[in-house]
Amino acid sequence: MKDIAMEARRAASVLSTLDPQTKNRALDEVASALLAGRDGILGENAGDIAQAEKNSMSAAMIDRLVIDDKRLEAMARGIREVAALEDPVGKTAPFSTRPNGLRVEKMRIPLGVIGIVYESRPGVTADAAALCLKSGNAVILRGGSEALRSNIAIGEVIRNCLRENGVPPAAVSVVSDADRKLVLEMLKLDGLIDLIIPRGGQALIEFVVENSAIPVLKHYKGVCHVFVDEFADIPMAVDICVNAKVQRPGVCNAMETMLAHEKIAAEFLPAVWDELKKKGVALKGCPATCSIIPDAEPASGEDWDTEYLAPVLNARVVKDMDEAMEHIAAHGSMHTDCIVTGDDGNAGRFLRGVESSAVMHNASTRFNDGFELGMGAEIGISTTKIHAFGPMGLEELTSEKFIVRGEGQVRE
Amino acid sequence: MKDIAMEARRAASVLSTLDPQTKNRALDEVASALLAGRDGILGENAGDIAQAEKNSMSAAMIDRLVIDDKRLEAMARGIREVAALEDPVGKTAPFSTRPNGLRVEKMRIPLGVIGIVYESRPGVTADAAALCLKSGNAVILRGGSEALRSNIAIGEVIRNCLRENGVPPAAVSVVSDADRKLVLEMLKLDGLIDLIIPRGGQALIEFVVENSAIPVLKHYKGVCHVFVDEFADIPMAVDICVNAKVQRPGVCNAMETMLAHEKIAAEFLPAVWDELKKKGVALKGCPATCSIIPDAEPASGEDWDTEYLAPVLNARVVKDMDEAMEHIAAHGSMHTDCIVTGDDGNAGRFLRGVESSAVMHNASTRFNDGFELGMGAEIGISTTKIHAFGPMGLEELTSEKFIVRGEGQVRE
Repeated sequence: MKDIAMEARRAASVLSTLDPQTKNRALDEVASALLAGRDGILGENAGDIAQAEKNSMSAAMIDRLVIDDKRLEAMARGIREVAALEDPVGKTAPFSTRPNGLRVEKMRIPLGVIGIVYESRPGVTADAAALCLKSGNAVILRGGSEALRSNIAIGEVIRNCLRENGVPPAAVSVVSDADRKLVLEMLKLDGLIDLIIPRGGQALIEFVVENSAIPVLKHYKGVCHVFVDEFADIPMAVDICVNAKVQRPGVCNAMETMLAHEKIAAEFLPAVWDELKKKGVALKGCPATCSIIPDAEPASGEDWDTEYLAPVLNARVVKDMDEAMEHIAAHGSMHTDCIVTGDDGNAGRFLRGVESSAVMHNASTRFNDGFELGMGAEIGISTTKIHAFGPMGLEELTSEKFIVRGEGQVRE
Repeated sequence: MKDIAMEARRAASVLSTLDPQTKNRALDEVASALLAGRDGILGENAGDIAQAEKNSMSAAMIDRLVIDDKRLEAMARGIREVAALEDPVGKTAPFSTRPNGLRVEKMRIPLGVIGIVYESRPGVTADAAALCLKSGNAVILRGGSEALRSNIAIGEVIRNCLRENGVPPAAVSVVSDADRKLVLEMLKLDGLIDLIIPRGGQALIEFVVENSAIPVLKHYKGVCHVFVDEFADIPMAVDICVNAKVQRPGVCNAMETMLAHEKIAAEFLPAVWDELKKKGVALKGCPATCSIIPDAEPASGEDWDTEYLAPVLNARVVKDMDEAMEHIAAHGSMHTDCIVTGDDGNAGRFLRGVESSAVMHNASTRFNDGFELGMGAEIGISTTKIHAFGPMGLEELTSEKFIVRGEGQVRE
C-alpha cells in the first residue's frame, strides 16, 4: 500500500504541471478505450456477478454491480463530459494590492493524492478517475471486494491509456486486493495521501472516519425535508413533494419527511396523498397527520431520523415555521431541505436559518446534484462544512495558494 | 467537557443569526472591558509567572507568558481591528442560473463550534475569541496549564461582556482545568465540535492530529527558503535574505535556508554574508558554500529540515532552478518560499511549481501573514491544502451552502 501511495505521490507532482490539452486528450482516449475494451470489461464483470450470485447477494445489490453496454456507454460519456469541463488548475485571481506595492494573487492547485474508498458500483472507478485526473490529482481507488474484477479491468484500461498519452499511469491506481487490512493501512498514510473520500453506506463512512489519520470528506445519509408553509401554493407543493419523494426514491437527495403548516394541513395533506398513494408510497405520520389521512400509520420515534431510500414517507403537522426548522435541526442530516411558500420573508429566514448543504425555495430537493446546480460531474455530496459543503466537483478537488509579486519589498 | 461543548453548540446556533452590529458592539465592549479589568488580569498573570519561575521555565518561555500594559493594549487593539473587518457571514454570491430557471447562489455560513488547543501566549485567548465570534462561531479555548490563571481571567472578562451585550456567553468557553485528559475528551466530540485548530509546537500539533476524530487545521513548522536565481539583482537579493532571516527570526515565516544559483554564488554569498555576519547570524553551508565563505561550518543532513527560530541559517549552492525546487520539495514545509530573479519565465515556473501556501517573487518571506496579505487578523497559517492553505482569517472560519430559488421546478 505504501508503495502504491509513493508512486501516486510522484505521479501527482507531474500531474500538477500538465497542461489541459494533455489531460483532456488522455481522458478522451480513456473513453474510447473503455468502449473498445468492452468484451474484456463485461467478461470480468460477469465473473463478479457470478460470484455475487454464489454469495446470495440481493438482486438490488447485483443490479448496482452490473456493467452492460448502456452503462459502459454512460461511463465513456461521463468521462468525455469531464474532459469538456473547464480546467481549474493554475487559474489565478487577484486578491489584493498592498500599500507597499505587493501584488497578491491566489492560484488554484491540485490537492495531491486522493484516496477513494467505495462500494459496489464499478462506474465510480471511471468517474472518480476522470474527475481526479482532470483536477490534477493522483487517485488511489479501493472499491469493494464484490466488484474487484470489474474495477481491476477498468483500471487496467485507464492506466494503459494514460501511459500511451504522456500521463504517468500511477496517476490512477486500483487496489487489487480485497483485504480490508489494506484500507486500514491506506488510512494511516497521512504523509502521502492528502484526502480520503468514502462513498457508500453509513457503516463504511463511519469505519473510515474512525480509522483515518487523513482528512475525510464525509457524505453521510440524506434525511431531506420539504416544509409546506401556510403561504404555499398547494398545487406547487404537491408537485414538489411528489417529485422529491418518487422521482428516484433510492438516492440521497430524495425527501424522507414532509412538514406541513397546521393552517394548510387539512387542505394540503389529502391533496398530496391522492398523488402519492397512486405511486405506491407508504405514509407514516404524527397523530395530526394520521387523523387527516386515515391511511397513514403512526410514525415511531426513529422513523424521523431514517433515510428510507424507498417509497416510504414521514409526515408531520407543525404549528409554525420555527417548529419546522427545529424539526430539521434535530432530525435532518445537513443534506437538502426545502420550503414551499409564497412569502419571501419566510423564505429568506428559512434559507438562512437551515443548516444544510443546499436549501431550496419552491424547488424539488432532487436538484442538489452537481449537474443540476451547474458545476458538472460530482465526486460526492459533502454533508460537513470543512473544505466543501454540498456537491463536490472539480473545484472542490483543488485548493488555492498565495502568489506574491514584489520588486524587492522587505518587512519593516 | 461534553457539557461545555453542548452549550457551545447551542450558542453557535444563536451566533450564526446575529447581525454584524451586535457582534461588533460586543467586541468593542470586550476590548474596553479588558483594559478596565487590567488589575485583575495582570494579577492572575503574575500568579502564572510565579508558578513558571518555581517550575524553572526558560526565560524565553516566561517572556511569552507575560501580560504587561503594552500587551494588554495590543490585545484590545487587536479585538477592535477584528470588529472593524467586514463580516463574511450571510454574504451571498450568484453561482449559476439553470436552463430550467433555477437561480443558484452560495451563502457564507459559520462553521459552528471551533476548538483551539494552544500553548503559552495568553494573547491567543483574546485573538481567537474575537475572530471566532466575528465569524459567527462558538469557540472552546484550551490553553496550556502554564497560562491557566491568565486565560481564565481573560475568559471571564469576555463572557461577562457578552452576557451584557446580547450574545450567549457560551460563545466563548475557556477550559478551566489543566488536565490533559480533557484535551483527549475534546478531540473525540466530533458530533459537537466542527474543527480543531492547534497552535503551538510540532509535538502539540502531532498529538492533536493523532488523537482527533474532528478535522484538524494544521499549522506545522515553517522551513522557508529563498532561492537566489542566476538572474537575481544582487543588492535586492541581499536585502530580501537579510530581512527574511533577521527581521524576526523566531517566527514561522522567517527564512531557514538560502539557495544560491552556482553562477552567482561567488558574488552573492560574500555580499549577503557581510550583512548577516554583522547581525550575528551563524551560517551552516554545503561544501561549495563553505569554500566560498570560510566562516560557514558544514551543514549536517538534518540541518536542512530544521526550523531554527533563531539567527542560524543554512546555505546551499545549486546548479539550477530545478535543483532548488527539488530541494524545497524535499526539505520545505509547504509554508513560504521565495525566488529572487529578474527573469519572468523562471519566476512564473517557480511560482507555479513550488507547493507552498505562499510563494513570493522578489519579496521577503516575512510577508506571509494575514495582515500583510490584506486579509486582516489571522488565527493561524495552514500548511495543508484541505479547507484553507496559508493564513486563515475570518473567511477561512466559514463555509458556504447552496441556496436554490425556484418557481415550482421539479426534476424530470
